[in-house]
Amino acid sequence: MDRVKYLLAEKEMPTAWYNIQADLPVPLPPVLHPGTKQPLTPPDLAPLFPMELIMQEVSRERYIDVPGEVIDIYRSWRPTTLFRARRLEKALQTPAKIFYKYEGSSPAGSHKPNTAVPQAFYNKKEGIKRLTTETGAGQWGSSLAFACSQFGLDLKVYMVKVSYQQKPYRRMMMETWGAKCVPSPSMDTNSGRAALEADPNNPGSLGLAISEAVEDAAPKPDTHYSLGSVLNHVLMHQTVIGLEAIKQMEHAGEYPDVVIGCVGGGSNFGGMALPFVHQNLTAGKKTRIVAVEPSSCPSLTKGLYEFDYGDVAGIAPIAKMYTLGHKFMPPPVHAGGLRYHGMAPIVSHLYKLGLIEAKAVNQLPTFEAGLQFARTEGFISAPETNHAIRAAIDEALKCRETGEKKVILFNHSGHGHFDMAAYDAYLSGKLTDYEYPESLVREALKDLPRCIVG
Amino acid sequence: MDRVKYLLAEKEMPTAWYNIQADLPVPLPPVLHPGTKQPLTPPDLAPLFPMELIMQEVSRERYIDVPGEVIDIYRSWRPTTLFRARRLEKALQTPAKIFYKYEGSSPAGSHKPNTAVPQAFYNKKEGIKRLTTETGAGQWGSSLAFACSQFGLDLKVYMVKVSYQQKPYRRMMMETWGAKCVPSPSMDTNSGRAALEADPNNPGSLGLAISEAVEDAAPKPDTHYSLGSVLNHVLMHQTVIGLEAIKQMEHAGEYPDVVIGCVGGGSNFGGMALPFVHQNLTAGKKTRIVAVEPSSCPSLTKGLYEFDYGDVAGIAPIAKMYTLGHKFMPPPVHAGGLRYHGMAPIVSHLYKLGLIEAKAVNQLPTFEAGLQFARTEGFISAPETNHAIRAAIDEALKCRETGEKKVILFNHSGHGHFDMAAYDAYLSGKLTDYEYPESLVREALKDLPRCIVG
Repeated sequence: MDRVKYLLAEKEMPTAWYNIQADLPVPLPPVLHPGTKQPLTPPDLAPLFPMELIMQEVSRERYIDVPGEVIDIYRSWRPTTLFRARRLEKALQTPAKIFYKYEGSSPAGSHKPNTAVPQAFYNKKEGIKRLTTETGAGQWGSSLAFACSQFGLDLKVYMVKVSYQQKPYRRMMMETWGAKCVPSPSMDTNSGRAALEADPNNPGSLGLAISEAVEDAAPKPDTHYSLGSVLNHVLMHQTVIGLEAIKQMEHAGEYPDVVIGCVGGGSNFGGMALPFVHQNLTAGKKTRIVAVEPSSCPSLTKGLYEFDYGDVAGIAPIAKMYTLGHKFMPPPVHAGGLRYHGMAPIVSHLYKLGLIEAKAVNQLPTFEAGLQFARTEGFISAPETNHAIRAAIDEALKCRETGEKKVILFNHSGHGHFDMAAYDAYLSGKLTDYEYPESLVREALKDLPRCIVG
Repeated sequence: MDRVKYLLAEKEMPTAWYNIQADLPVPLPPVLHPGTKQPLTPPDLAPLFPMELIMQEVSRERYIDVPGEVIDIYRSWRPTTLFRARRLEKALQTPAKIFYKYEGSSPAGSHKPNTAVPQAFYNKKEGIKRLTTETGAGQWGSSLAFACSQFGLDLKVYMVKVSYQQKPYRRMMMETWGAKCVPSPSMDTNSGRAALEADPNNPGSLGLAISEAVEDAAPKPDTHYSLGSVLNHVLMHQTVIGLEAIKQMEHAGEYPDVVIGCVGGGSNFGGMALPFVHQNLTAGKKTRIVAVEPSSCPSLTKGLYEFDYGDVAGIAPIAKMYTLGHKFMPPPVHAGGLRYHGMAPIVSHLYKLGLIEAKAVNQLPTFEAGLQFARTEGFISAPETNHAIRAAIDEALKCRETGEKKVILFNHSGHGHFDMAAYDAYLSGKLTDYEYPESLVREALKDLPRCIVG
């Protein structure tokens, strides 16, 4: 009988995260202070983050140990299973081999707890009592709520309003773990009130919710802010995915020709991809590494590589990244976790250096892929994940044409149990595609370089 | 570091189900034909079930091989993980050791696919094109939808109306896997129309939905009916849970003093419990085996052990079981999967023989337990599962009083991702307890023995 699952023993779980900053051929550009426009120093970040995370953000150490307290909680669901998608391969009649790493088995149902748990841990260790954060689809907010429940921290989540309305169950999940969740824009912050004054029907965006969460945390000494994507330390925590996958692919006796992940802020993609970039850079491997984004929010494929604010209000740090402009308001597609104007500086940098590829896919084909996946592999996937599935299927279909027996590996970032309304809309023909018009991209970007004038 | 997870290698997965009929000290009473009131013969059941399942229903073989095609699909999520609930133990300050077998990792999120997959397989093998079934909370309907998608069978699900309204996501899940789902009572059957005529606001019940599904299937040669609980073959398929758990407890170096499962129809309880009953009967073990039911539907603790119809309309077979009477309409508690008037004949028989115990718990304490579990172990559990968690916590708290270091094992039958509205109601103080009044039980049961007059 052919194997479909590659488990990893608990003792083979990585005990250190991989930090790609040790191996970048060109170092990352500095991150700038939103007020002074000068490079940020660790003390600048201290009102928002614990010092251990700040030091991880700028570290050049190749490996950073995972604390025992974090491993203790990781063990509830890690190592995650690597699957061979044999039933999907059969349905596609492809000679390709498709593997996926299934991150949907965490308590919160996605890869996000991989960084939520260490972030909660380091904050707790520094004596912090309360965290604030934003969430798009709710994957991040619920993951941090889970992590905070493990360490006895209070949490307030600003949830992008369109998702708050589409996904009430995600809010209830956060509350079940003891967190408080409000729709963003909210009346609780200056940024939120300003947005609502300008447009009472503002559907919210990740960039705006970040403004609110940062504004809530910064002045309070017992409160820190926590970000679920984009930052270097976040991508580093996620590398447990790729590090495990490398060992599991070894057990499978294969090495991927193509590695695929969906990208919004870049954390699940980074988590899977960075250890494979490391192999390409240092072990002579030639794996194609593909970031898949939605056509409705095409930061890599249509954005500019520029310094830009991480948030809408311009109070978050300025980073060099592929961006659609911090004022960008993405259409309300169901992949809420991919609706961010920018892209992780590390992912942006690797793309600029030509070390990874990017492609954009539209909404309807991603749901078509998700449905085919559900009816073959069984798992119902998050709309974000369906972007990776779409790209993996497309690679496999190309192999059917060419006869190539490529090994395709994608990161399955999470289940779609809280996204059933999106499947319902798709099945009843109510879903549409969104191609972001070039003219609007140009409009959103035209003032961009000005924000870095120091 | 103390272990929290006990995995089982794929090659250690059971290759045969355990059939307790081989070991019963007293054989099961016969099942009677609803029309003739005479013992059912295999041909009587042929309009509803494939012959292989009918033969399993009456088999006295101790072990029945799991077909390779079924194992192939089981392997997507089996063997499931056995967890040691160390964080819950710590929160309870108990000297007891709590273990749970986590069945929530299946594609449908519960133990139900353990029988859905073989049922779909045997029907497909016999040339059947379409199945019908009923579902309460939606766990079973979605599991059979998943299984049918794997074998290319059509499926129509009659979903208890109160659950259909409370849990739209479960319907969408079934549709994602390609099934058709209607609220029961429906206008599609005589049983449904009669119920709606008597009361247009009839909230539905499992017993009534069974009537509809049976009526739909029986006259059609290409259509069979599939039942997710109660029957002998269903409980037998579920024994993969207990068979795996026995091996995993061995790996943990422990043997349970108490085994706990929640009961509605009896399938997840039976799946976990029967292999341990086997050990008690044949290997000199003395494990207490506890079935936990809701106070709102207390068939074991307040019902009668009598012959009764399996459904409301009286068209399903008559079985000897603990029952509240087939006309019983349970209050709309959130544990929809436990709202059945009867109890599996095997579970009833074991209870009558004194080989297992039963207890009833009320709704609010089960959610309190579920919340404590979520905030310690991380997983958000189905309201049904919360009954088992409640009982496990109560056992552990007793150990705190007595100082006993008991080993407690419970079956975690599934996640609560589609039950967040129930948690929301609990957290906002809108949930109430339901104690089923003795007088109503007596009223519902008073005509019962008449139905078996041949």
